[in-house]
Amino acid sequence: MRTHFCGLIDEAMIGRTVTLCGWTDVARNLGGVCFIDLRDHEGIVQVTVEPDNAPVFEVAASLGYEDVLQVEGVVRARQSVNDKIRTGKVEIIATRIEVLNKAEPLPFHAHENAGEEIRLKYRYLDLRTPDMQRKQRTRIKLVQALRRWLDARDFQDIETPILTKATPEGARDFLVPARMHPGEFYALPQSPQLFKQILMVAGFDRYYQIARCFRDEALRADRQLEFTQLDMEFAFVRERDVQDTVEGMIRDIFKEVMDVQLDAQFPRMTWAEAMRRYGSDKPDLRIDLELVDVAELVKASEFAVFTAAAGDPDGRVAALRIPGGASLSRKQIDEYAAHAAKFGAKGLAYVKLGENGEISSPIAKFFSEEAFAALLRHVGAGNGDIVFFGAGGYNKVSDFMGALRLKAGKDFNLVRDGWAPLWVTDFPMFEWDEEAQRYVALHHPFTAPAVDDIADLRANARTAVSRGYDMVLNGNEIGGGSIRIHRPEMQSAVFELLGIGAEEAEAKFGFLLDALKYGAPPHGGIAFGIDRIAALMAGTESIRDVIPFPKTTTAQCLMTGAPSPIPDEQLAEVHIRVREKAQP
Amino acid sequence: MRTHFCGLIDEAMIGRTVTLCGWTDVARNLGGVCFIDLRDHEGIVQVTVEPDNAPVFEVAASLGYEDVLQVEGVVRARQSVNDKIRTGKVEIIATRIEVLNKAEPLPFHAHENAGEEIRLKYRYLDLRTPDMQRKQRTRIKLVQALRRWLDARDFQDIETPILTKATPEGARDFLVPARMHPGEFYALPQSPQLFKQILMVAGFDRYYQIARCFRDEALRADRQLEFTQLDMEFAFVRERDVQDTVEGMIRDIFKEVMDVQLDAQFPRMTWAEAMRRYGSDKPDLRIDLELVDVAELVKASEFAVFTAAAGDPDGRVAALRIPGGASLSRKQIDEYAAHAAKFGAKGLAYVKLGENGEISSPIAKFFSEEAFAALLRHVGAGNGDIVFFGAGGYNKVSDFMGALRLKAGKDFNLVRDGWAPLWVTDFPMFEWDEEAQRYVALHHPFTAPAVDDIADLRANARTAVSRGYDMVLNGNEIGGGSIRIHRPEMQSAVFELLGIGAEEAEAKFGFLLDALKYGAPPHGGIAFGIDRIAALMAGTESIRDVIPFPKTTTAQCLMTGAPSPIPDEQLAEVHIRVREKAQP
Repeated sequence: MRTHFCGLIDEAMIGRTVTLCGWTDVARNLGGVCFIDLRDHEGIVQVTVEPDNAPVFEVAASLGYEDVLQVEGVVRARQSVNDKIRTGKVEIIATRIEVLNKAEPLPFHAHENAGEEIRLKYRYLDLRTPDMQRKQRTRIKLVQALRRWLDARDFQDIETPILTKATPEGARDFLVPARMHPGEFYALPQSPQLFKQILMVAGFDRYYQIARCFRDEALRADRQLEFTQLDMEFAFVRERDVQDTVEGMIRDIFKEVMDVQLDAQFPRMTWAEAMRRYGSDKPDLRIDLELVDVAELVKASEFAVFTAAAGDPDGRVAALRIPGGASLSRKQIDEYAAHAAKFGAKGLAYVKLGENGEISSPIAKFFSEEAFAALLRHVGAGNGDIVFFGAGGYNKVSDFMGALRLKAGKDFNLVRDGWAPLWVTDFPMFEWDEEAQRYVALHHPFTAPAVDDIADLRANARTAVSRGYDMVLNGNEIGGGSIRIHRPEMQSAVFELLGIGAEEAEAKFGFLLDALKYGAPPHGGIAFGIDRIAALMAGTESIRDVIPFPKTTTAQCLMTGAPSPIPDEQLAEVHIRVREKAQP
Repeated sequence: MRTHFCGLIDEAMIGRTVTLCGWTDVARNLGGVCFIDLRDHEGIVQVTVEPDNAPVFEVAASLGYEDVLQVEGVVRARQSVNDKIRTGKVEIIATRIEVLNKAEPLPFHAHENAGEEIRLKYRYLDLRTPDMQRKQRTRIKLVQALRRWLDARDFQDIETPILTKATPEGARDFLVPARMHPGEFYALPQSPQLFKQILMVAGFDRYYQIARCFRDEALRADRQLEFTQLDMEFAFVRERDVQDTVEGMIRDIFKEVMDVQLDAQFPRMTWAEAMRRYGSDKPDLRIDLELVDVAELVKASEFAVFTAAAGDPDGRVAALRIPGGASLSRKQIDEYAAHAAKFGAKGLAYVKLGENGEISSPIAKFFSEEAFAALLRHVGAGNGDIVFFGAGGYNKVSDFMGALRLKAGKDFNLVRDGWAPLWVTDFPMFEWDEEAQRYVALHHPFTAPAVDDIADLRANARTAVSRGYDMVLNGNEIGGGSIRIHRPEMQSAVFELLGIGAEEAEAKFGFLLDALKYGAPPHGGIAFGIDRIAALMAGTESIRDVIPFPKTTTAQCLMTGAPSPIPDEQLAEVHIRVREKAQP
């Protein structure tokens, strides 16, 4: 239907007759000559229709936004060159125009701002805009580059089922009723974790899959019901084998897709160090602020909140110095306190040092002058700074002080440009769940502990370290993985520590335990969040911008209207019914 | 953990110390020397343990099938060369053996035949066998080659949602209850059809996706609940643009993956011709047998079954000559009749011509000798042949005679080796559904009719031809596609002809009709069945062999135990309950 693409017409083609297809980006009648900006996926070219060509002119004069055209014409040098577009030195003198499809007046103009709701309803119009095309293409390029990299290194792209078995974290499973098995359900996978481990047992050596995963959770701004991960697994490996390989991959891919040279060696940091210095297991290293532990320096104060935490082996007293932070008003300081409270802080102590060294602090009175000076010296506070203090349980203090660090980084423009990747390693194996009074897995129940000895693990579960690792980029966990348990006895022991009894383990993971019995190699892997990496590369905060057809935060597709009610007869075929509403 | 792969050790490495990892394929103690066949994904190498190395020998002597090992040793030339394996000229003299994981006695020996049920339950053991590895790798290679081909030609790999809206062929939809929307459901896509059309409207020019699709049907031997297709769509195209592109792709891919040179031009055939000559819309051209229409020659007979069909404008009387078929016994002929009956035949007439020309036929008596001779001449029957005759409605006769053609092809070894691709085109737009008393779409409701004129389509719906096309290979429909409707009025008209009222169309396809209004380009595409193509390439009848984790014909995963019952509390969270069993 066409000989060339609109956006690729150039001076070398002057004098040639071409046939183009595309959309009417805009059509104007200027002093009796019609100018049509004809757009396709490659770009825009100007089509000029002179009044002496009456039948064509008539068509051109009646065009509206987004009418779909086939245009035949001759390429000519343009008199008024347009430097803003690639084809700006040429125009097409139309000899024939066929309207392939008229467009009705648009619900919003494709190239102007509109609310997200209407943009999602008419997603196809939004996707036509150059900005969205660029974002989507970044994602396409990313995935293509990853595949090429992996294929060249003998990774095997293997598909795992979407209709599979409900998992332990079952509450987040999407359920699918089974027509042939009344009362039974498939579940959509939260990840291909068990299948990829099984593939290693099956003798595949290096696996990958760009895998769709599903998690039925309340949606946060950056979550979707379904998301895409680059899922990888390796047989016969230790941590560094996996890490070095994928670090090289990420470096190569950033070079290829973004022309960005990441660090030749990503910094490495244990989970403990990350929590201590940055109050986060995914620290944004573009911000130079660090937490400083001050328990030793506040022990002797009269501030009970500090002394209690400083005396508690599980406690923490940490300070965050913000250079120039003395400019914060009382109200702004309250906002910081409120932000900290969202992450569990019960209060937020601070010291402001005026430009001339004058101290303003609700807690100074609890210290001797000398001790207070020593404290300020220790945290490096200078004139014009503010220092926030947090005290309480170790993890909670780390969390909210880490959150303040991020907020201060943004508020004070302390976030460096560029890319700051790192590895976080040596995660705790378990977290103690106060409410459930049992351990929960920090990664997942298939992560190997650092110790090989089951008795040792049992005796020291509280402090046990796992063989898990995360890749972090600019404060985002973009990849997470681990060396897995490959011995059935160890897997059973970990299940037991997690409160999963032998019977439950057999019912839910019998096939994994079986597989580990029949010759499972040592293995490990990692999974990368494609949506997040694409968003980072495309320079957008929202992963919705890099997902072609995303759902809203209320889990709806505004374009198709999913989810939707289903006739009861159809539900009967799959042996379910809608539950009556609970009485209020 | 290793310096080399087992299967790649060769003579160039003699004298070097290597560390290998792998499975104990077999371990034997022969005259005081232990020989271990150590296997990894690349192949097998022999590890030799001499008795003077007592601690290593002790480990080696206790090994069982599939124990996972790390072996350190020195590569040495082998005295008794084994030509059957790539590494047969070398062996490893072990200096250290570590058992990384013991294997319990296997439920079946990985390299021997076992029932499909046990093979599916312990899928990882089955996948370890060289035969299954080869089949899976064929699929992996196929998909990789397709992607590379498409990426090189600027096709954009775009993901479409898995959680989407219920479709018109709703009865086959898998349903997923929505937690945030009580009483509402997502559906899993039967194909990304509407999304890919929307992508064309959104300005993407050439789309592809290796897409997971879902169909909740009773499973036939070659169907799965979820299957994989190469889904493609092109903007601004006519039939030949799509067909020529993908024909080239299939040719290139067969060359690359199989080293097979397919026809430089695939034969093309209308649906009508395929039905007439082969009684099938997916004829297997490796079989030279053809149906012959004989209505004119039987009109004057006294056989009412023939004369009725011959006189009916929608009837057919067809003959199938099987060379050498006179060898069929009475019982075998009954089997042919039974086979035809499965496809709707009410009876099956035949003529056997003995080696000396003697005629044996229940229908000869209805013809004059002359007319019967003319009939046999017309179908080319010679001594030693059998000719089957079918009479009745056109499509039904075509169906069962086509089925007989395939059976005869197999039974008489008339299926040529090699590859016989073709295009089938010009499908009927609609089929009349007697039961529902309305038209149904032969492809799908978005397929464009050959005529552009709505009035014309309405007036001639019964005989209207669509712009659909199938690619057929060796009797399998491996790809199906069409030019789509891109004008909203035509789409509405087709919905109406299919008995989908304006209101229903708006509720189900409102977003498509909208999209067509706002500047939809002419577009078309195709989808290829990856599972089927992989099975053909791997030389297996069953697509289960090329799916890593398939389900059974009763829709179960024997390995994980999916589907499974779900506690009622969990169902309550997604607002459904299991339906009580209907009273018998």
